[in-house]
Amino acid sequence: MMKVVVLRWGHRLRDERLTSHLLLTARAFGCSGIVVSDVNDWDILETMTKIVRDWGGPLTVEMGISWRKVVTAWKKKGGISVHLTAYGENIQEGNVLKRIIAAKKDILVLVGSQKVPSEFMQSQVSDYNVSIGNQPHSEVAALAVFLDRLYQGRELKKQFYEPKLRILPNPRKKVVIKFGERDTLKS
Amino acid sequence: MMKVVVLRWGHRLRDERLTSHLLLTARAFGCSGIVVSDVNDWDILETMTKIVRDWGGPLTVEMGISWRKVVTAWKKKGGISVHLTAYGENIQEGNVLKRIIAAKKDILVLVGSQKVPSEFMQSQVSDYNVSIGNQPHSEVAALAVFLDRLYQGRELKKQFYEPKLRILPNPRKKVVIKFGERDTLKS
Repeated sequence: MMKVVVLRWGHRLRDERLTSHLLLTARAFGCSGIVVSDVNDWDILETMTKIVRDWGGPLTVEMGISWRKVVTAWKKKGGISVHLTAYGENIQEGNVLKRIIAAKKDILVLVGSQKVPSEFMQSQVSDYNVSIGNQPHSEVAALAVFLDRLYQGRELKKQFYEPKLRILPNPRKKVVIKFGERDTLKS
Repeated sequence: MMKVVVLRWGHRLRDERLTSHLLLTARAFGCSGIVVSDVNDWDILETMTKIVRDWGGPLTVEMGISWRKVVTAWKKKGGISVHLTAYGENIQEGNVLKRIIAAKKDILVLVGSQKVPSEFMQSQVSDYNVSIGNQPHSEVAALAVFLDRLYQGRELKKQFYEPKLRILPNPRKKVVIKFGERDTLKS
């Protein structure tokens, strides 16, 4: 199975909650790693560390590296990059997703913001520019739908390694089991 | 076609960007209206007004109404409510989405936060409690994937009414046309 890592470009400290949501989405939707490029944000690192401790891993978290270095290293190792942008090829038209899947390569998903440099759309940076619809919305929404379609829904049943907590889906109640109390479940 | 409206519960003024992303996602993914319950936030109203003016409508925006009143009125008119929560039935298991579609009713999508009262999971409030996976992530991600699956991707090609701006999808460039300049396109 291909490896998918998300690179968050353009994080600002005041966007902490938005970036946290993006990174949580990357983890929950099957990515094996996340990179917050060009800036360090220790609160976000703490949030993600806590999530992995409580809900399971594995997940690599990198911060502060230049986006250019990450992209160059990724491509040197034979991976491809997919830039999510409202301006790119609409995932609902044409065959861009098919081409990405057919490449059978590890994928670095570049997630920017409105202010992403236009250089990001060029082939030295992005092998594919993909839009999740061509309307302004949210990089969190775009990432979720891209990954849901890439993995064809399988990611929503992913089992994480060594969680302390696990939700048991229930139509009417909040049911959370704690690791070590699983035997109770069988009764 | 059924009507879908999103109700955002638990908005706090410091969450402006996150709620904006949620509302932009609702619009871009085919909802006809949004409600921010129990609180007024004029910055968000301005953001959404500007988006509709530039990128097209229609979209109803309501604010400050009690969530209970909205839910009660919706149900009285024959609509159903779907609560997105990490604790609910996993959309990837069982048949909860099929049941929702089969109901052929207008849908009020309730989007809360971690602190949503447990009352939200009860049948007086939610007809369905749906989880987009059972991991902690983001209400923006959850809403996007729910709507993408509900509309089976058709929402990403939705044409909006009277936009001033429209993106032309392109694999390598940012191409935006302005309303009134469309004739140029034909050349």
